[in-house]
Amino acid sequence: MDGTLSARVMALKEAGRRTGRQVTVRGMVHALRDMGGITFLTLRGSETVLQCVCGEGFDLQGVTEECAVELSGLLRQEARAPGGVELAAEELKILSRPAAPLPVAVSKRKLNLNLDTELALRPVGLRNLRQRSVFRVQEALARAFRETLHQLGFTEIHTPKIVHAGAEGGSNIFRLDYFGRKAFLAQSPQFYKQMMVGAYERVFEIAPVFRAEKHSTARHLNEYTSMDLEMGFLDSFYDLMEVETLFLQKAMALLAEEYAGDVARLELELPDAAAIPTLRFDEAKGLAAERYGYRIRDPYDLEPEEEQSIGRYAKEVLGSDFLFVTHYPSKKRPFYAMDDPSDPKYTLSFDLLFRGMEVTTGGQRIHGYQEQIDKMLARGMHPEEFESYLMIHRAGMPPHGGLGIGLERLTARLCGLDNVRHACLFPRDLSRLEP
Amino acid sequence: MDGTLSARVMALKEAGRRTGRQVTVRGMVHALRDMGGITFLTLRGSETVLQCVCGEGFDLQGVTEECAVELSGLLRQEARAPGGVELAAEELKILSRPAAPLPVAVSKRKLNLNLDTELALRPVGLRNLRQRSVFRVQEALARAFRETLHQLGFTEIHTPKIVHAGAEGGSNIFRLDYFGRKAFLAQSPQFYKQMMVGAYERVFEIAPVFRAEKHSTARHLNEYTSMDLEMGFLDSFYDLMEVETLFLQKAMALLAEEYAGDVARLELELPDAAAIPTLRFDEAKGLAAERYGYRIRDPYDLEPEEEQSIGRYAKEVLGSDFLFVTHYPSKKRPFYAMDDPSDPKYTLSFDLLFRGMEVTTGGQRIHGYQEQIDKMLARGMHPEEFESYLMIHRAGMPPHGGLGIGLERLTARLCGLDNVRHACLFPRDLSRLEP
Repeated sequence: MDGTLSARVMALKEAGRRTGRQVTVRGMVHALRDMGGITFLTLRGSETVLQCVCGEGFDLQGVTEECAVELSGLLRQEARAPGGVELAAEELKILSRPAAPLPVAVSKRKLNLNLDTELALRPVGLRNLRQRSVFRVQEALARAFRETLHQLGFTEIHTPKIVHAGAEGGSNIFRLDYFGRKAFLAQSPQFYKQMMVGAYERVFEIAPVFRAEKHSTARHLNEYTSMDLEMGFLDSFYDLMEVETLFLQKAMALLAEEYAGDVARLELELPDAAAIPTLRFDEAKGLAAERYGYRIRDPYDLEPEEEQSIGRYAKEVLGSDFLFVTHYPSKKRPFYAMDDPSDPKYTLSFDLLFRGMEVTTGGQRIHGYQEQIDKMLARGMHPEEFESYLMIHRAGMPPHGGLGIGLERLTARLCGLDNVRHACLFPRDLSRLEP
Repeated sequence: MDGTLSARVMALKEAGRRTGRQVTVRGMVHALRDMGGITFLTLRGSETVLQCVCGEGFDLQGVTEECAVELSGLLRQEARAPGGVELAAEELKILSRPAAPLPVAVSKRKLNLNLDTELALRPVGLRNLRQRSVFRVQEALARAFRETLHQLGFTEIHTPKIVHAGAEGGSNIFRLDYFGRKAFLAQSPQFYKQMMVGAYERVFEIAPVFRAEKHSTARHLNEYTSMDLEMGFLDSFYDLMEVETLFLQKAMALLAEEYAGDVARLELELPDAAAIPTLRFDEAKGLAAERYGYRIRDPYDLEPEEEQSIGRYAKEVLGSDFLFVTHYPSKKRPFYAMDDPSDPKYTLSFDLLFRGMEVTTGGQRIHGYQEQIDKMLARGMHPEEFESYLMIHRAGMPPHGGLGIGLERLTARLCGLDNVRHACLFPRDLSRLEP
């Protein structure tokens, strides 16, 4: 195999552009089909597959699926092959061999495993092309988030996951022994990203967060990847919704342009994020209840079933897969949420519903020191326990707000997966600590 | 303040291009200097500062440092101002006020705090321009890593931090109660990134790792950000060194182009990564010992002091801030490291020293199933405890290897900081759990 690293890197991906030339490519033997004399060998590369034709008499002795091989031959156009090209194999070198057949036939179009088996076999099941495309889509989402924010002047930060207090409160927090002291795993980077606003004005982080929730649902993970941002000098929390809309537009464009193979393989219908409709919390509840003929049980809560109805309303009536729901009730939002001055029962906040499920929570934060102290006291909290956090309010903070997006949940909704675990490489839940 | 979000975002950053025009900008009052009649107000924006001149009679009633303000006026060229422009202030609106003066004068050029105070005051100390530039440099490093790998066809992954077994072994691992089961915090994404090589061929992750080391040094953190990659179809581990060199070249280019203000403020001398010299482990030890006249205490170990001497040798004799040291002793490398077939006392591995300190560890891994089992057994390990990891070796793995870079340590070396804690937003160490 000739040339520099990047020449080798590009070999398989760029193969389509080199028809009529001799090439040498490396990859895993994804599938072998003996057609009587001729054998079709599908070579799996990092982002694509290449059909290789091994003519009669070609030595395939010892070659099995999941061998790592190097293949040389003439690359030619072939309309019936995936990607429109195939390799007429002339020479094959085995670089490594499996020790045993795979526990699952990864070359099938769909694996069709039950969830437990899929997750237990994930280290090898990802060799299935559809499976791996899910996490390529996930990559596109993270890239789009970063690239959008970078263009808007946000700075990337890395904040600690071992913390001395939880940002979200409550009991769903993992405890840790930290050299004999009690510590916790961060439920969100909330305090830290707010601290950074005074210095960098706009910051973001993509990192794991940890929630010790003791219930098992199709939409929760005990560890997930949170895409967080926080920005200063808001006019209002609608600015945050504008940023999120820009991100979603960028994501769909990136998927259509650079991840078209994955999108096609998963048969995804990319949602339109050109203009996302907005309804107030109470308004959305009322409209969905009226249209679908049910009674609102709790005017201050939004159950998953109600989110589904509101999502259905957004699709059927407003023609959108996305819906911003604004002005969540104050008692359902954390102590740092800014109340709506015109009706303090509600907050200057929003969720983004995507196909009937919450994928983002955001809102404006309290920036005034005394206002923050007062709200903490009214909730029976002890401000002295939050000294380093309140340091920034005392020092002066611009009007600011932020949001957090669950990357796995967004991926699952986009890919039409019915359980968020399908969209997490190695999910952590009540019963799952490995692989 | 008129216009769309992006118009508002760009206001201060783009100010330099709008001289001769009326502008409205927002920012924090970084400094106020009363020159007798005229007052210079330094406005701090997300990436830059703007000098604003408030003439006699301008109402600055109630304006203090760390007020969030909106300023309107004529932007004009002024050679003596930072960036060559200044704002002739005409109107000022206070958006928010601090509740108390800052505990530290952030508008000074250098804070000159001792380490403990610096870290305790970090939430506000970062408003100092030099302090915040350190983490802008850090952002550039992470961006360069991602952009380099993205161009080379690597896929970004997110792997769990709560794990059932440590990848690096030993006792320096944090323990966790996971719903009544024993769990750990990941010391590295090693097993997971290897698992992904069979599916994606090339993967990377930038994420926190956790080391419960009980000693306190200027080069260790108990939680740090690891930039990890793993790639399949290596010719040899020298391919990994080529990838790292490409990353460092990209990083220096990005810093020079897009982070020039931060580089200048920190007075950084960017190292040359055009061609990084390489020495074998035993060779490097011998050459440094000979040149600096000391005896080698342990032929199989590399103490921090010896790393410094080797780094000095690299600078004085080879003219490089960087040095790849290859072929580390087998007994100092983990069980998955591939031994050198020509001398199994050593491994096909490397470290990167940067100005005399290790900032990267990498190498080729064992890909053969039986070879991996044999090495585990020879070390007294129990392969049955690593079932999901060994699943990939059994299923077939290409020759592969990878590396891990400590982001904070790399930042600290680049910025000439004598303690890695200076290059971590919120360090975790034996005595520090907050802020």
